[in-house]
Amino acid sequence: MTTSETALVSTLAGRYYYDDTVFAAEQERIFEAMWFCAVRSSDLANAGAFKAVQVGRESVLVVRGRDGAVRAFLNVCRHRGARICTDESGQVRRNLQCPYHAWTYGLDGKLIAAPNMSALTDADGAEIDRVAYGLIPVALREWLGYAWVCLADDPPSFVDTVIGSVTTRLGDPAAVDRYDIDSLHVGKRVVYDVAANWKLIVENFMECYHCATIHPELTEVLPEFADGLAAQYFVGHGAEFGSDIAGFTIDGSAGFDVLPGISLDQDRRYYAITVRPTVFVNLVPDHIIFHRMFPMAPDRTVVECDWLYAPDIVSEGRDVSKSAELFHRVNEQDFAACERTQPAMSSRAYRDGGVLVPAEHHIAEFHSWLVGMIETGIA
Amino acid sequence: MTTSETALVSTLAGRYYYDDTVFAAEQERIFEAMWFCAVRSSDLANAGAFKAVQVGRESVLVVRGRDGAVRAFLNVCRHRGARICTDESGQVRRNLQCPYHAWTYGLDGKLIAAPNMSALTDADGAEIDRVAYGLIPVALREWLGYAWVCLADDPPSFVDTVIGSVTTRLGDPAAVDRYDIDSLHVGKRVVYDVAANWKLIVENFMECYHCATIHPELTEVLPEFADGLAAQYFVGHGAEFGSDIAGFTIDGSAGFDVLPGISLDQDRRYYAITVRPTVFVNLVPDHIIFHRMFPMAPDRTVVECDWLYAPDIVSEGRDVSKSAELFHRVNEQDFAACERTQPAMSSRAYRDGGVLVPAEHHIAEFHSWLVGMIETGIA
Amino acid sequence: MTTSETALVSTLAGRYYYDDTVFAAEQERIFEAMWFCAVRSSDLANAGAFKAVQVGRESVLVVRGRDGAVRAFLNVCRHRGARICTDESGQVRRNLQCPYHAWTYGLDGKLIAAPNMSALTDADGAEIDRVAYGLIPVALREWLGYAWVCLADDPPSFVDTVIGSVTTRLGDPAAVDRYDIDSLHVGKRVVYDVAANWKLIVENFMECYHCATIHPELTEVLPEFADGLAAQYFVGHGAEFGSDIAGFTIDGSAGFDVLPGISLDQDRRYYAITVRPTVFVNLVPDHIIFHRMFPMAPDRTVVECDWLYAPDIVSEGRDVSKSAELFHRVNEQDFAACERTQPAMSSRAYRDGGVLVPAEHHIAEFHSWLVGMIETGIA
Repeated sequence: MTTSETALVSTLAGRYYYDDTVFAAEQERIFEAMWFCAVRSSDLANAGAFKAVQVGRESVLVVRGRDGAVRAFLNVCRHRGARICTDESGQVRRNLQCPYHAWTYGLDGKLIAAPNMSALTDADGAEIDRVAYGLIPVALREWLGYAWVCLADDPPSFVDTVIGSVTTRLGDPAAVDRYDIDSLHVGKRVVYDVAANWKLIVENFMECYHCATIHPELTEVLPEFADGLAAQYFVGHGAEFGSDIAGFTIDGSAGFDVLPGISLDQDRRYYAITVRPTVFVNLVPDHIIFHRMFPMAPDRTVVECDWLYAPDIVSEGRDVSKSAELFHRVNEQDFAACERTQPAMSSRAYRDGGVLVPAEHHIAEFHSWLVGMIETGIA
Repeated sequence: MTTSETALVSTLAGRYYYDDTVFAAEQERIFEAMWFCAVRSSDLANAGAFKAVQVGRESVLVVRGRDGAVRAFLNVCRHRGARICTDESGQVRRNLQCPYHAWTYGLDGKLIAAPNMSALTDADGAEIDRVAYGLIPVALREWLGYAWVCLADDPPSFVDTVIGSVTTRLGDPAAVDRYDIDSLHVGKRVVYDVAANWKLIVENFMECYHCATIHPELTEVLPEFADGLAAQYFVGHGAEFGSDIAGFTIDGSAGFDVLPGISLDQDRRYYAITVRPTVFVNLVPDHIIFHRMFPMAPDRTVVECDWLYAPDIVSEGRDVSKSAELFHRVNEQDFAACERTQPAMSSRAYRDGGVLVPAEHHIAEFHSWLVGMIETGIA
Repeated sequence: MTTSETALVSTLAGRYYYDDTVFAAEQERIFEAMWFCAVRSSDLANAGAFKAVQVGRESVLVVRGRDGAVRAFLNVCRHRGARICTDESGQVRRNLQCPYHAWTYGLDGKLIAAPNMSALTDADGAEIDRVAYGLIPVALREWLGYAWVCLADDPPSFVDTVIGSVTTRLGDPAAVDRYDIDSLHVGKRVVYDVAANWKLIVENFMECYHCATIHPELTEVLPEFADGLAAQYFVGHGAEFGSDIAGFTIDGSAGFDVLPGISLDQDRRYYAITVRPTVFVNLVPDHIIFHRMFPMAPDRTVVECDWLYAPDIVSEGRDVSKSAELFHRVNEQDFAACERTQPAMSSRAYRDGGVLVPAEHHIAEFHSWLVGMIETGIA
């Protein structure tokens, strides 16, 4: 063991976790610049179904078109700026109509009607351009059954950044495909409102040095976690179920059938993936736990967690409670830990930050990445 | 039709509606510099009746004196700064006494007593000047039955600015006098707390392009409003009641007797007047709807609305509910629209503002006026 | 009488009472630099009992050790910054353990255990220093039965600043000792949450010009207070009970036996002492009223008030209500006055402050002291 492998390594300074200026830079250069996982596509079942999602400082309207495609727009009328949709989700009949002056947009965003529109021209006297005065589009990609949006004028490569994160972690581009995540159904969803900076939640997810202390149920199912090494520490490594554990459930009892496509070595294993900036994915043989974060303020993060199962499990109304309860409890334990950490970030004791033990050393790379992003913008 | 008459014209940029610096400039250069309509004079029935009103950043105490005159003062004791009156309104017996150390002021603001006052001198050893150490006076004018105050050291001309606004709109100095507004009584009052910038409320009041969309009851009574042209668009124009409409009521049923002094052409018509910065007046044949705004924060405005009727209608307790309900519903519809507009002001979609259609072009003059006021101060 | 003795003297400008910058300077240069009275030592009865107290911007953990000594630490884990104790008070069994990753500290602050600690080294490869990675200690002194803490690297002299304040006021170092305050027991405690700047509370405590106006019960017991001269105005002076007053109680009825150690001239007298920055002590023959302030924001101060009695009075459960009610009512009267003063601090009427009458002249020295502290730091 060399010194560096045993040494305590510095974390970010405390101000990164409470400073309004840091958070503003993160909004501009991270959440509004990278691909941001916004909505489970299946939540938008039919044409006209919409969700309004907070991405950085923007309300983004994600809506399914009559052609079946999902699109995203800034949720702002081009006339006088009213919110098109104020409900978090809903269903429109045919079009998106601003309820203030009735400017009306197609589900593809084009301006299709406005009172006295025939008498309107642009500043040059030309007829109104229905695209130029349409809703402002936001880039969108669907993957793993989710709609990912990007507010950047020139979005980074989805393949390199989003898909690349998963491949790098699992060591194999095919590994995630075998779970066929986009075909799964949402069996349970919980929304957590966490009084902590989003980075504390990322760091917590990345390490398992805390597992023995706060996750008794999880370490029962995954005994190697009691040693403090996170699944994320090794490329391609999945934590193995304990020998007496039948399934990834709150009491170790049997779960559901293994998902049909996965490989033999993926059975009885737990994989954890961070997709920067705001997504965590956990893979277990019979379901997927998919977290999306919505950073609202330096000290507040909303986390939406989906438990995804094979379609028949959901459609037959089978009981997922023992299955979902395990990670729900983990979430509550983790978020409580993050919430008790947030207030100390502004203490003089944390002015230069704290320390990472060897089992947390990989978090330092997250810290360097973050500093690089907010200090120099998108590379 | 020339190009300019059909063209979309730019609004103010979004930051004007949420920026603390803009609001601070508005407080200093508009609300604390112009005549601000504070109180219905009749609310101060007897000597010693007072109201404490927020004007810009100041609490202004408006009080009726023993001589019957209404006066205004800063609501701050000259000794150690306690609020003289903390209730929003009330009635004192003889004097205004600070409840902390009992410094006592006459209803004319003069310091008339303080514990051990005979042993006090100013810094030069002279006897205390009862005016210099009296409550700080605020300029006050009464008109239309309201007390208008001005915090400026050198108030602008009341005739040119306040009365002039009404005359310019109605095209005739005598037009408003015929309603004899100061003789009317308050039949109903509603206070609205609106989560929107005060300028969104002004703009909303100035245009009727939204009427067809959000005001079904109002356009029933005033059919020309369905075309989107606000009453304010033409000098002297009053919107005419529909031919099947008996009165300005929620269901078009008959209202009360026409106010005695109005002219024949004022009957069956609705006039709307904006008196900058914070007053809207609506004239209909049998009553007046009088709005005073109190801007509290960039995104919060309190609006107090009075419905004024001939004295006997109020004193006889006649039922004004059908009459008052019409504009109360209009207010709720308008303020909901303003509240859904406020959050989008900070979107990148509104960074350079939105657009005004021809029926809203006159709002551009309000925008230029505002920019002129906060950038250069009072002309 | 010379001019200066009768003249009105200026107070601090209004901004000192609401400005965030002023409050930040006070936190850094006063609350975190001076001795700050934190906890009644007897509240920490046994080894492992703790209280978490806000001192300036820091949460300070005060805990009784196994050796009986009381110690203070920053309430922040040295690993990743979690709060060690989130409850305001409590009792640990053996050690202080961070509930996030189980880093464990002795009651003396030393790091005594951490998961995989044997495999940890510092950046130089050396074994972890259990003191260097222990909880960060905060200076602590006990006096009058309270634990006083100081966050300064180099605390000022406790004798000169804290004890000196009391001696200067009472004129005799032995005067306070005779009350044997550290032997007394807490008979009643009330915590007040006051919407006012801490300096308004200090100023209120320092003068009695308001007594005739707002303290009818107190001036009944101490008739000289009706003249407006505070007990604090004269060195060594104690205000004398009225001739018909049997004890310091809400109705002037008899209190308890005189505290055994006090001198004859201390009987039937009331003494008031301000120990800057945040402590007020009142001495009466049969009990002590001890206030600690916790400034939370420019416009919010928590005040914790203890009524201290001879041990047997508390242990026998004797009724202290008439005794404690008198100053509880005074507190409520005073804090209401401070709360009505706070909002006017930002008025243009108080831009240059107000005035001090002769009976308040000594407050000017508090103002000079404050300005000196925040402008130049600790002298």
